[in-house]
Order: sequence, then structure tokens, then C-alpha cells
Amino acid sequence: MQRNDGLSTRAIPRRSAAAHAPRMTQPIRLYRFPLSGHSHRVELFLSLLSLPCERIDVDIPKGAHKRPEFLEKNAFGQIPVIEDGDLTLADSNAILVYLSLRYDAAGSWYPREPARAGAVQRWLSAAAGPLAFGPGALRVAAVFKKPLERERPEQLAAQLLSVMERELGTQPFLVGDHPTIADVALYTYTAHAPEGGVSLAPYPAVRAWIARFEALPGFIPMVRIPVTAKEA
Amino acid sequence: MQRNDGLSTRAIPRRSAAAHAPRMTQPIRLYRFPLSGHSHRVELFLSLLSLPCERIDVDIPKGAHKRPEFLEKNAFGQIPVIEDGDLTLADSNAILVYLSLRYDAAGSWYPREPARAGAVQRWLSAAAGPLAFGPGALRVAAVFKKPLERERPEQLAAQLLSVMERELGTQPFLVGDHPTIADVALYTYTAHAPEGGVSLAPYPAVRAWIARFEALPGFIPMVRIPVTAKEA
Repeated sequence: MQRNDGLSTRAIPRRSAAAHAPRMTQPIRLYRFPLSGHSHRVELFLSLLSLPCERIDVDIPKGAHKRPEFLEKNAFGQIPVIEDGDLTLADSNAILVYLSLRYDAAGSWYPREPARAGAVQRWLSAAAGPLAFGPGALRVAAVFKKPLERERPEQLAAQLLSVMERELGTQPFLVGDHPTIADVALYTYTAHAPEGGVSLAPYPAVRAWIARFEALPGFIPMVRIPVTAKEA
Repeated sequence: MQRNDGLSTRAIPRRSAAAHAPRMTQPIRLYRFPLSGHSHRVELFLSLLSLPCERIDVDIPKGAHKRPEFLEKNAFGQIPVIEDGDLTLADSNAILVYLSLRYDAAGSWYPREPARAGAVQRWLSAAAGPLAFGPGALRVAAVFKKPLERERPEQLAAQLLSVMERELGTQPFLVGDHPTIADVALYTYTAHAPEGGVSLAPYPAVRAWIARFEALPGFIPMVRIPVTAKEA
């Protein structure tokens, strides 16, 4: 693992929600890999919340995520992992939940009201299920040149994008009028689906949502890989 | 869809957490299929919370979940779905989050403290990801006699069960000393993994957790299918 000290602890002035958050004594440490959409999901949310972080690159191609010292942080051997004071937490969705409950005092990113919290969770499940095993798996296969049986992932991608298209045709964000961690969780692998051979051309409402999301203050992009699909 | 009126609105006396919950004007309606572990996850939690429900069977083998009237309830065309007053909510994890926030006033099933909520979410992600695409997929293939390429689901099952074994070796439930919706979300497809050819023999801590979970007041089992794996 290498510290990217050049990238670390970007002290962006805090905004809105984070302004009322508990004071941090040190930046959050983020174990990540630059090409991982799951890592980007967390980096993006830290930036949207204006929370400083120290990025630590985990050398995935060399298997650093399967070594004992990393398995101590996450027994699944997966990035991202954060350390915030005494807390170590893995799983990108789990980190979104934690960060919003701890640092977004306004509760706008993860509403506490039961029906809206349930609506957010429905999309977190989609992110951990069909998004990861559909567009996510197709992109990983393309980026790392791995063989993959495409039929099932393509079905998952088509079904997920169709549902998003239908629901984003009636409201600007996945859970209503304002962005939530549901949008953060779905953004990266959806926006980068063409890198795995999944075209977004048939989904205009999804493309409009991507543009709307990218216009949010604090948005940061993930590095792009040459596209393998015919793309609009 | 058929109403199982014989099964519906079992009025079990309420206990503990639910005692301080908002009063329900009508039972929660649960759209389900008896062999679905995702449906069982919700039925189980309703029973653990002593919440009355009306079960409505969706005829999955005949494709009732892909008809327009059901797609109105869940665009993904999947069970379970609940209706609670004016609310319609799909996704078993989302329903667990909703029910605990709304009816478990004590907050013991889904702790509000950010680090513990994050720890719960880590397992909800595992339930929507490797549990569904590993042991869940293997069981569906066995129960419905569908062809399946087993290699990847078996890897997912082995990795997930190994992590559970490791973490349940140090604490009685997935997020500490008390059961949470993390345990509810992981229970069904783990306990029924042998039906898909995944033996639990190598995982004694997981088997002890299953027994501990099944001893909880209000536990209800899912119907068992003949086992295809050599089982301890």
C-alpha cells in the first residue's frame, strides 16, 4: 500500500450539511484503487460532503487486498475501507450510510423518515446486487481483460437500466426531488457502463440524471477508460 | 395472485419493541411466494416484531410478477413487496429497514448510531450481493431445476461463509451481542444453502449462529426442500 501524499488531505472548505457536523480531529483515511467504481463511490461522497480525506492506494493488481494486514481491515478482502478515528469500516454502501448519519446533520443525503429510508435502501440493494453483478462486472472484465460469460450480466444491466429509466422519468433523482446516497451509490457504475460494452443510448432519462448529478457542487469524476460500446 | 385468507392476519400478541410502536390501522399486506427466501426474510421479521400481516401469494411459476399490475408495485418485477397504509415498498432489505425504523421504537434491530448502522449495512450489502448471487442462485437453480454455471456462485458462497465463520467466531450475532436486521437478512439463504448443494459442515460458527437465531422468540422457519449436498 502506498500513501498518495500528493493527493491526500485536500482541505476543501466545508459547505451546507457538513457545517453542522461533528468536528473531525484528523482526515478520514480511504483505502482505494483509482479504477474501482466502489472506491470512487466513497471518494465522491466525501467530496460532496466536503470532508477531507487521505487516500491510500491498495495495489489490487499485485494482490495487496488479499494480504493479512488488509484482511484485518476487511475480511472480504475488498476495497474501499475507511478509517475514521477508531472506526474501521468496509463496503461502499456501508460507508455512505455511516458518513451521512455522522456528518450530514441535515439528514438530506440519507433521510431518517422510515418510508424514505426504505426507498433509499431499495437502491443500495440494487447497487450491491444487479449494478455490481451487471454493469460493474462487465466493466471489470473489459478494464482488466478478463473472460466473462456476458449473458446474465447483460440481462441484469438491461433490467436495472430499464427500471431506472422508468423511475427517473417521473422524478429528478432516484428518491424524489433531492439527491440522496441512492444516487451516489448508483452513479459511478451507471455512468461508466459504456466502458463495459453497455450503451446508455436507449436510456435518455438515465443520461439526463447523470448530467444532473455531475452538476452537483463537489462532484468529482472517476478516471475514464476507452469505451468498448457504440455510444450515443 | 391469490389471497391466503387462511394464513392471513395472524394476530400474535405484541412484544417488547413493537409495544411502543405506532398503532397499525390494518395489517401489512405482504406479496410473497412460499419458496422465496427473500419473501421469508420479510415474513420472519414481521413475526419477530409481532406485526400482523396478510399474505398474498404471487404465482411466480405462472409469471404473475411480470404482469403490469405487479410491475406497478415494483418495476423490478420481484417479490417481496409490502403495502402498509399508503406505502408500497419493494426489496427485502428495504422492507427490513422500513419496518425497523417505523415499528421498532427501541432501535435494537437497526441501531441508529452511525458506526453500528454502517456495520448493519455492510451485511445488507452482502445479502444483496454475494448471498443472493452465491447460495441464493445455487438454491434457485436446484429448486426450480434450472441450469446454472456453478463456479462463480460457489466461489461467492465459499468466500461469504468464510467471512461469516471468522466474524461469528468472535461474537454471537453479525453486529455484536444482539440480533439486528443484518442477521435477519443473512439467515434464510445461509440456513437453506445445503438445498443448493452448499454444505455448512465446514462452518461450525455459522451453524451455531443459525441455531441461536432459530431460538429467538417469534422465529418462523421457511419450508425446507430436500437437500442436494452431503450435509453434516
